Amino acid sequence: MFAPVYFDHNATTAIAPDVLEAMLPYLTQRFGNASSRHEYGRAARRAIDEARQQVAAAVGAHPSEVVFTSGGSEANNLFIKGAAACLPPGVVAVSAIEHPCVREPAGQLVRQGWRLCEIGVDGEGRIDADAYAEALSEGPPRLISVMLANNETGVLQDVGALAEAARPARPWFHTDAVQALGKVAVDFRALNSRGVHAMTLSGHKIGGPKGAAALVLDKRLELQPVIAGGGQERGLRSGTENVAAIVGFAAACAAVTAAVGGRAKRLVALRGEIERGLSLLGATIFGAAAERLPNTSYFALPDIDGETLVAKLDRAGFAVASGAACSSAAAGPSHVLMAMGVAPELARGAVRVSLGPASTAREVADFLETLADVAQGLKRMNALAG
Amino acid sequence: MFAPVYFDHNATTAIAPDVLEAMLPYLTQRFGNASSRHEYGRAARRAIDEARQQVAAAVGAHPSEVVFTSGGSEANNLFIKGAAACLPPGVVAVSAIEHPCVREPAGQLVRQGWRLCEIGVDGEGRIDADAYAEALSEGPPRLISVMLANNETGVLQDVGALAEAARPARPWFHTDAVQALGKVAVDFRALNSRGVHAMTLSGHKIGGPKGAAALVLDKRLELQPVIAGGGQERGLRSGTENVAAIVGFAAACAAVTAAVGGRAKRLVALRGEIERGLSLLGATIFGAAAERLPNTSYFALPDIDGETLVAKLDRAGFAVASGAACSSAAAGPSHVLMAMGVAPELARGAVRVSLGPASTAREVADFLETLADVAQGLKRMNALAG
Repeated sequence: MFAPVYFDHNATTAIAPDVLEAMLPYLTQRFGNASSRHEYGRAARRAIDEARQQVAAAVGAHPSEVVFTSGGSEANNLFIKGAAACLPPGVVAVSAIEHPCVREPAGQLVRQGWRLCEIGVDGEGRIDADAYAEALSEGPPRLISVMLANNETGVLQDVGALAEAARPARPWFHTDAVQALGKVAVDFRALNSRGVHAMTLSGHKIGGPKGAAALVLDKRLELQPVIAGGGQERGLRSGTENVAAIVGFAAACAAVTAAVGGRAKRLVALRGEIERGLSLLGATIFGAAAERLPNTSYFALPDIDGETLVAKLDRAGFAVASGAACSSAAAGPSHVLMAMGVAPELARGAVRVSLGPASTAREVADFLETLADVAQGLKRMNALAG
Repeated sequence: MFAPVYFDHNATTAIAPDVLEAMLPYLTQRFGNASSRHEYGRAARRAIDEARQQVAAAVGAHPSEVVFTSGGSEANNLFIKGAAACLPPGVVAVSAIEHPCVREPAGQLVRQGWRLCEIGVDGEGRIDADAYAEALSEGPPRLISVMLANNETGVLQDVGALAEAARPARPWFHTDAVQALGKVAVDFRALNSRGVHAMTLSGHKIGGPKGAAALVLDKRLELQPVIAGGGQERGLRSGTENVAAIVGFAAACAAVTAAVGGRAKRLVALRGEIERGLSLLGATIFGAAAERLPNTSYFALPDIDGETLVAKLDRAGFAVASGAACSSAAAGPSHVLMAMGVAPELARGAVRVSLGPASTAREVADFLETLADVAQGLKRMNALAG
């Protein structure tokens, strides 16, 4: 396969070689069902127990707080739907920039008598203080979900402060930490002490495999399972455990949490290089004034369509995104940029570069050179068409 | 790792070597998110498209009818909950011997105003004709789910005939074919023409990996997603696709459907050997008079506890089950045997042997020898204790 430079780490990541190595025994001779009461089963159970400890340790949680799921989308659905099924209908408040796998299940609650409150953000993509205060006073919300870092802009929220401010309303507070994990320090215990009850993590964004993720859950909360059945994961998530993927997820957690500080510095420097180049091309950088993930740059070039730019860059050997991967099929400009008040014409130009631990200065320099060429070509075409 | 003889293929199976080989590119260089619009993403999308064709071909379905999920439990929950959310509350009828991942979601519907009707079985584990007629006349049921083959007994149901009989009631009819696939021929199109609308398949029971399964779904049915979000799988199952697992599932489908006829003959012969030996030991064989999966023998030896026997056999080098793997943690005798009217004392003796394509006559002979020894030892202990 032709191997373009991969600058789309917020969409997914390659499995790290040591992670795959940790997985392989569970894809071969250690194939047991973790519920089986024989040696094959016990070997699988031991692997899951150890993985649970590793994932918990990566975010300062207790192993008994980790509920494995098949992915971040499932974990977010489990929190929203599982919590709602245990509460009388009320207000569910989610930020306007949440991933669809939070927004959609929150929207599905409306048919069950819930009211959905979308918390607005400012022009940089940060939760708007007034909108948040209003959300807390209305209702008040029984469920709140605010993501730690946005997948498109990379903008970080001060989730601890938001949870603290919400305390008088006593909501069940969840944060989607899928994009934050491995890019900035994530501490469930610290957030939990400030009023965050649940957190979503995912393996394939951090050098782990697709197919394993977790909901980290304060055990004082009771949830109804979304996938009910054999009673695995303390009855919160039934189904034969995907042992190899869980082992890989845990190995990736252990690797990234050790490396996160050093990586962040390097990525901020590389991202700085990219954004200096972007500025020279007249780019708008979304959320640039906010605290962001070190690896993410989300921008638009004047009068250049984002989808077109992504396609041209792909042909030129660079894999970048025009927004969130999962909603690439969706028409219309990004809901995140719309919530930030970005003009639709500008939002349609949006392109996301998300670096990874193996990204190099050389790749960045090549990218900027290619981008300048491609942008010039597109402008020339625009001029001819105009 | 100490490698006992594996006679627990209904719990899970080892990944076939060629299946793992098919998966490996997607665990390494082809790691893209299938929703990404660059070469990495397109490679993943192509793999999923091809996998969908292979899975569909294995059961005579159209690729557009295949909805990938993370496992059989999720697929069963998707049908039960997803269908119920699109229908006015009514009666949901499921057989008394369904897997918990059908029974539990059906039970969860009760809180939403549904009435649960459990369809009884006869002493051999076949749907009881009178109980079924009664279920159809009461209500009538809007949703019916009857499994193609039971995971404990291996007993097959004539699902096509059941669906046909239900037609006047116009229910949405689902069958869990997880245990049937790869062991007997499974033809969705034929069943669909008789009134079956949906069917659950799973990868890890047929030499594929854990983490991929499918709901095969008549497109005239509308379901609400259980995992909502980015809109993957025609909006029926959101979340980044587990490409490697899906590819492995499809490769396993292709392999088993080609081999199913030849395998069945061999396994019936081996199982016959086992059951002749069991008879000499005075065993009761559950469902022996019914049509069964070729690989499954579910039995009890007089006055010997099933859990104890499984533990002893494990230490002696044979991995068998005392029932369904996923409910091994559950106390009390099997709900399947209770539904069959088996006395609880006898049911507590239940042990399941489930052979696989690589099982040999030698393993079977060794097993019978070991079983005779172990049984004799346990009887001696019982005699001393009594």
